[in-house]
Amino acid sequence: MPGIIDGKALAETIRKELAASVEAFHGAHGTRPKLATILVGDDPASHVYVRNKVRACEQIGIESESHYLNAAAPETEILHLIGSLNTSNEVDGILLQLPLPPHVNRTRALDAISPTKDVDGLHPLNTGLLVQRRAALVACTPLGVIECLKRYQVPLAGRNAVVVGRGDLVGKPLALLLMHENATVTICHSHTANLSQMVSRADIVVAATGKAAFITPEFIREGAVVVDVGTTVLKTEDEVAAIFGSSSRKLQDLREGKTVLAGDVHPSAYEKCSLYTPVPGGVGPLTITMLLANTLRAAESRRILYR
Amino acid sequence: MPGIIDGKALAETIRKELAASVEAFHGAHGTRPKLATILVGDDPASHVYVRNKVRACEQIGIESESHYLNAAAPETEILHLIGSLNTSNEVDGILLQLPLPPHVNRTRALDAISPTKDVDGLHPLNTGLLVQRRAALVACTPLGVIECLKRYQVPLAGRNAVVVGRGDLVGKPLALLLMHENATVTICHSHTANLSQMVSRADIVVAATGKAAFITPEFIREGAVVVDVGTTVLKTEDEVAAIFGSSSRKLQDLREGKTVLAGDVHPSAYEKCSLYTPVPGGVGPLTITMLLANTLRAAESRRILYR
Repeated sequence: MPGIIDGKALAETIRKELAASVEAFHGAHGTRPKLATILVGDDPASHVYVRNKVRACEQIGIESESHYLNAAAPETEILHLIGSLNTSNEVDGILLQLPLPPHVNRTRALDAISPTKDVDGLHPLNTGLLVQRRAALVACTPLGVIECLKRYQVPLAGRNAVVVGRGDLVGKPLALLLMHENATVTICHSHTANLSQMVSRADIVVAATGKAAFITPEFIREGAVVVDVGTTVLKTEDEVAAIFGSSSRKLQDLREGKTVLAGDVHPSAYEKCSLYTPVPGGVGPLTITMLLANTLRAAESRRILYR
Repeated sequence: MPGIIDGKALAETIRKELAASVEAFHGAHGTRPKLATILVGDDPASHVYVRNKVRACEQIGIESESHYLNAAAPETEILHLIGSLNTSNEVDGILLQLPLPPHVNRTRALDAISPTKDVDGLHPLNTGLLVQRRAALVACTPLGVIECLKRYQVPLAGRNAVVVGRGDLVGKPLALLLMHENATVTICHSHTANLSQMVSRADIVVAATGKAAFITPEFIREGAVVVDVGTTVLKTEDEVAAIFGSSSRKLQDLREGKTVLAGDVHPSAYEKCSLYTPVPGGVGPLTITMLLANTLRAAESRRILYR
């Protein structure tokens, strides 16, 4: 029987630890870490994400302030807001919710966030510090994956890890983090030849392609540890039936109007794993948790360096 | 018969192209690109390296200015010099020759160089921009390796590349560059299990370990392309005989007081390669050439952005 990484329980544990650290921070400094969120436009999913992040902050005693800008807000207005949050002594972390409206240059906006407040770890300076294995704010999802693997005591040193996907948000930073843990890392992507064969050599597979149920059993070595970072919202009954079967509970969920998610890993591959992260409830809950950890870390660093 | 990458001839070709671009630059701007070198202390090898770099600049019409500091110069003096070169409108590139004396914090010194003048590509901002595949000044040796592979028309997309070594100067940036060329990249290192087996799967092997003759025939797949970045100075007749044989010309060279170099790749592995870079005369000559290319690039960028 494969083991299942319970991301929800793990996130709960870590958030309790963080809450204690936040209290200690409050005791030491008389203030609390503070996250500023920026949301541009009225994408409903983005509003849900921001609300969840703000709520997660509250839960563990991190303060937050939310900034909402009109979808038509000119780029200069966004950059101006970021500039004022950069210099505000109240704000420790700045989260710019993506995606941005098409008229805004995403790179320019993200680059404008001070690296010391870049709790999403997307500024190129933080990326470079990560490469050089220096203290940095690291992207939340890759941090969450490493946290899962460590807390479940998955040995990494000397193991073959294959990361499928080479995006800036997950694939590349995660490959670097796994390498820093002394894993032998291979990064596969859309140009990789014999992809399933390459992946089937791995002791540890991380799937970050965003293609629903793409990783089928032939990708997985018997006994591998599989981390599934993908989440795709399934829209049609056909899609759900193709992945979960035509008598699946998920099909019922879809008909009842519930959101049905699929990961990158096909459920039929689970039985070959020694340990895997389900979707939902695997890596997902760790991502926001790592945002909280980064906010606390940024706040601590600022109290040392920039007061 | 394996093909040999003639790094010296290739460097010559590229320097001619660069000389023409430098002339065009001079025609357009009325000035020439200028490299400032900084050498701290009196390590004889470092003096040779700096002299070679300055001479290579002269050859293609790049100006240079050399700064020599005493081995006992305090760190603040080095940082002050870097600061004044950063703001000098005359200087396009700054090269801080390594190693630095032990009392100087190398990271602090390298970080002090303006990213726009960082022709060695070692500033974390440039490293991060490389990861994000944005225009950046990239470390010279990895650039030279890619240039070798491209000019010899080695197909990279979809090929399995294994980089042995994960240093900041070569291994990590090279892995990123190969990935940007759509190779499937694996980074091996001291913790890798079954190293020779891992490497023997590669279509393209890059050896950057600094261990003389470490890569023996069993590491190499028949027909692989092998790039040897290592250079170790051999000191004893035993070392030379062990690698090159007891009747080798190199043994004679050593006895005559000449410098004998060994790469990471054992000469007995060459016959399995379809193409390889020798040591010396392979990647080496490309490194300084890429420093020239970076200086020109920094100069062009400054003329656009910072005049």
